Amino acid sequence: MHIGFIGLGKMGYNLVSNLVEHGHTVVGYDINPALVEAIGQEGAKGANTLEDLYKALPEKRVLWLMIPAGPLVDNVIEQLLAFMQPGDVVIDGGNSHYKDSVRRHEYLKQKGIGFLDCGTSGGISGARHGACTMVGGDADVIEPLHGVFNDISVDDGYLYTGPAGSGHFTKMVHNGIEYGMMQAIAEGFEVLEKSQFPVNFEATAKMWNHGSVIRGWLMELTQNAFSKDPKLESIKGRMFSSGEGKWTLETALDLGVPTPVIALSLLTRYRSLQDDTFTGKVVAALRNEFGGHAVEKK
Amino acid sequence: MHIGFIGLGKMGYNLVSNLVEHGHTVVGYDINPALVEAIGQEGAKGANTLEDLYKALPEKRVLWLMIPAGPLVDNVIEQLLAFMQPGDVVIDGGNSHYKDSVRRHEYLKQKGIGFLDCGTSGGISGARHGACTMVGGDADVIEPLHGVFNDISVDDGYLYTGPAGSGHFTKMVHNGIEYGMMQAIAEGFEVLEKSQFPVNFEATAKMWNHGSVIRGWLMELTQNAFSKDPKLESIKGRMFSSGEGKWTLETALDLGVPTPVIALSLLTRYRSLQDDTFTGKVVAALRNEFGGHAVEKK
Amino acid sequence: MHIGFIGLGKMGYNLVSNLVEHGHTVVGYDINPALVEAIGQEGAKGANTLEDLYKALPEKRVLWLMIPAGPLVDNVIEQLLAFMQPGDVVIDGGNSHYKDSVRRHEYLKQKGIGFLDCGTSGGISGARHGACTMVGGDADVIEPLHGVFNDISVDDGYLYTGPAGSGHFTKMVHNGIEYGMMQAIAEGFEVLEKSQFPVNFEATAKMWNHGSVIRGWLMELTQNAFSKDPKLESIKGRMFSSGEGKWTLETALDLGVPTPVIALSLLTRYRSLQDDTFTGKVVAALRNEFGGHAVEKK
Amino acid sequence: MHIGFIGLGKMGYNLVSNLVEHGHTVVGYDINPALVEAIGQEGAKGANTLEDLYKALPEKRVLWLMIPAGPLVDNVIEQLLAFMQPGDVVIDGGNSHYKDSVRRHEYLKQKGIGFLDCGTSGGISGARHGACTMVGGDADVIEPLHGVFNDISVDDGYLYTGPAGSGHFTKMVHNGIEYGMMQAIAEGFEVLEKSQFPVNFEATAKMWNHGSVIRGWLMELTQNAFSKDPKLESIKGRMFSSGEGKWTLETALDLGVPTPVIALSLLTRYRSLQDDTFTGKVVAALRNEFGGHAVEKK
Repeated sequence: MHIGFIGLGKMGYNLVSNLVEHGHTVVGYDINPALVEAIGQEGAKGANTLEDLYKALPEKRVLWLMIPAGPLVDNVIEQLLAFMQPGDVVIDGGNSHYKDSVRRHEYLKQKGIGFLDCGTSGGISGARHGACTMVGGDADVIEPLHGVFNDISVDDGYLYTGPAGSGHFTKMVHNGIEYGMMQAIAEGFEVLEKSQFPVNFEATAKMWNHGSVIRGWLMELTQNAFSKDPKLESIKGRMFSSGEGKWTLETALDLGVPTPVIALSLLTRYRSLQDDTFTGKVVAALRNEFGGHAVEKK
Repeated sequence: MHIGFIGLGKMGYNLVSNLVEHGHTVVGYDINPALVEAIGQEGAKGANTLEDLYKALPEKRVLWLMIPAGPLVDNVIEQLLAFMQPGDVVIDGGNSHYKDSVRRHEYLKQKGIGFLDCGTSGGISGARHGACTMVGGDADVIEPLHGVFNDISVDDGYLYTGPAGSGHFTKMVHNGIEYGMMQAIAEGFEVLEKSQFPVNFEATAKMWNHGSVIRGWLMELTQNAFSKDPKLESIKGRMFSSGEGKWTLETALDLGVPTPVIALSLLTRYRSLQDDTFTGKVVAALRNEFGGHAVEKK
Repeated sequence: MHIGFIGLGKMGYNLVSNLVEHGHTVVGYDINPALVEAIGQEGAKGANTLEDLYKALPEKRVLWLMIPAGPLVDNVIEQLLAFMQPGDVVIDGGNSHYKDSVRRHEYLKQKGIGFLDCGTSGGISGARHGACTMVGGDADVIEPLHGVFNDISVDDGYLYTGPAGSGHFTKMVHNGIEYGMMQAIAEGFEVLEKSQFPVNFEATAKMWNHGSVIRGWLMELTQNAFSKDPKLESIKGRMFSSGEGKWTLETALDLGVPTPVIALSLLTRYRSLQDDTFTGKVVAALRNEFGGHAVEKK
Repeated sequence: MHIGFIGLGKMGYNLVSNLVEHGHTVVGYDINPALVEAIGQEGAKGANTLEDLYKALPEKRVLWLMIPAGPLVDNVIEQLLAFMQPGDVVIDGGNSHYKDSVRRHEYLKQKGIGFLDCGTSGGISGARHGACTMVGGDADVIEPLHGVFNDISVDDGYLYTGPAGSGHFTKMVHNGIEYGMMQAIAEGFEVLEKSQFPVNFEATAKMWNHGSVIRGWLMELTQNAFSKDPKLESIKGRMFSSGEGKWTLETALDLGVPTPVIALSLLTRYRSLQDDTFTGKVVAALRNEFGGHAVEKK
């Protein structure tokens, strides 16, 4: 199949290689010309503008976006609308908010253009060698594309999740779970680290990853991380986040679902970005007020 | 009534003044001779040793301990046992674990000595001008002492809580609630502090303390703290704890009571004592592993 | 001052009485004619329509809304716009979202109409006998109204919080704190209830309310509640919520403020509305899968 | 190697089969004679008493306990001490508290008897076909047994964790992580379940288990569970726990490690065992007190 791929960052670049490897004909575009240049080495054709990319595709074009979530997606869609025609299909493979995807689907549908929201998991290596994809959208739009999603995914790693928005919704929840699992693993390792025992973190992660209940890819990655830096002495514990954990919690609040673990995973990340907290100052000041407990001066 | 008072720190010293003001005859002892000296100015008599203190009291002695919780209480009781006689009463006015109080009550009862566990709240000013006391122990032992507890407490601020241990148990739970309330207040002020609005913290606390649902002593203390340092710029947000919050959570775990707010109040304090966390390092390392997300180097 | 009061429910009715008591001339309207009738007994004049209410007021009208937050506020404002004139002032005394208040302020300002967002705390008794009010809006608009807010509030219980939206923002945070404090109190009482000791809840709340660190209005209300039903046997533990706790958490998420206690207070309320949970089913099923642990059948 | 195996429940029975399959000579005992009878079918020899079991073993006996944690372990050790001799080794393969294991190691060492604490993960299927084992104890005691632990574990699934207690400590933390991961997964599925989308839970778990970041054995088990009961309609969401999550949290509290996710995983389980809560009653009563909010009557 012919595919126009927009966004050749870490995820996009590897997905293009993956597509090419499976026999698809890919034209790739990125605002960074170096990436357009580089993609040629992967067997794809580079395009210098969105219009060039569009024109290089046969009718019933498939335009795959792999770009940062947010207004940029709307912006690129608007640019594409300058030449898109009924029958074309836009696939948003990024981490867009599912409500945006529901809206974009509606918007494009009115113009006769298909829209699929594709949540993509598996990290960079997955993008290259077999991802996990969860895709929402109209059944007739996705019908001719099932093969493509199957191609870039590991066996059984692709699911058509249903109506527009459900792909990104499913991916959002996946990330919410991921936040909780990562925090659970990390808390466990901190208990080990503070314990009286001389724990070998890498060996522990490796052992846990062979036969234990908590084995899985995150534990493999934990092992990898410790293999490079046995006590993680070289890095800071700043936990950034890119939105999906927050969206999962916000959605849970809207739905009335109690999600304490996902909530605390997120709040713990926020806390890690502060060196000191106003909350802490207020509590310390109060303890001083009623009990004369000493406070630490700055 | 004649009372032997052991421990003349911030709380003890003020309780002695309070007792004297209410017409009681107090002999005070502390390991710090300066405090023994000073207590004379409050109208109490100083004793240089536990034995001197004991001998200065009439029979059916009342020995009030206001010392740090833990082994020291057992230690002082053992020292007193060198001369205590059946009919004497020990009051533990400190923050002992209620299980220790149950044990000490049993131990002393076998020797014919009464034991009362007195939880004391209200901070230093309360100790001086009217505390809140919750006292457990045998009904016949506390009978002649109701008046004393009433004297040092504000009106309606004294409760005989029942069997041995119940006084310190009630105080423990009081402190667990206190942790949660303080954390709730502090979180609210941090939301104000990070907001788009130019909030006057002192004025807000003052207003909330007049007529709002969340008015109370802790809000008064919040106002006081901000009156001295409008943005708490001079202090660090390190939140120490002295054990009762932890005991409340441990007790809740033993009783199967879900106490998320008390739990998180405590864990947030622990977190405040770390500059960086191993948990954070593990999560940051994992994000780097699967997504290539940048980590901050130390 | 002449005031048109719209919304005569529990809060509104009592605020009208309060205003009248302080010498203000009030015209009241409600969609419920019985309340319009009743308000006459409080010394206010009833109006059968918004237009009647409006026409009964002298120029530079003050229109005080005390109605449920949400679209109804916009709806009533639109109805009033049929006759409002530049110089009039709308006060929203309800629990509106602060972002709505920022928007409404902007919208009305363009028409020359003032808008004040007044957070009102203190419950029904406060509305009647002295509330706590936190009011945002333009300085020139609020200037002639300081006296009115002072009148209906307890001494020091009124604060002009600054720009439009800041009144409702401050009230929102107040409620977030309130959620946390209530949950902390409730958890403590559940620990008492599950304990080995025969606790008298009313007596404990009363004692804590006299001299302890956690004394305050919520503890008074706790005492009141137990005085009516000593073990709360007649009621269910369903904890409803009206939005402000959720908004506080959502705002904290937007601002990056870690608020674990407010988050958990809210999630615990959500949990209380479920008899059984899907979360629990999944965990129970997983325990059965790996360990053969028995599950309870429905 | 000759091994005396005590405790032939779900885990023990399968471990014996596993050992026999790897060429070890096993004598098995259980208080349930039916299990002693049955174990013969697995190629092991049954023993009717502990003494029979002991006498059937050659010198330097290896006695493997797979029995419920707690006083029973001490009890069985005391029974064995009636005939055990220096040079014998006791392996505790159950879920004992690591502090008990430290104590038992010390106790037996004084008698010249070796003690190894072996945390065993992987569930029933792991016990049979390849477990994950983490074993603590003296290096010279474990030396001749490395092969046995390797035999019953999957490749790389056995780790000698160090000093006595470290095996059960590592297993305890493993279970703490497991609690958090299970709760994270379960919360995610509840968000899916309450969503607007028609989610196929089994298909989602299957897809997530192929290529996603959150793939792992727990997700496989999730898929299995949904394959048997697509909406888990037949079971109740009661989440029991057997101690290790609680111990992990208690240990974290002792070590000062903030573990919010592990804490909430545990508290959520406790909550699931209550149909109604006293906490909820108190909050509902308070809302009624200050705001006149309706409460649900029982």
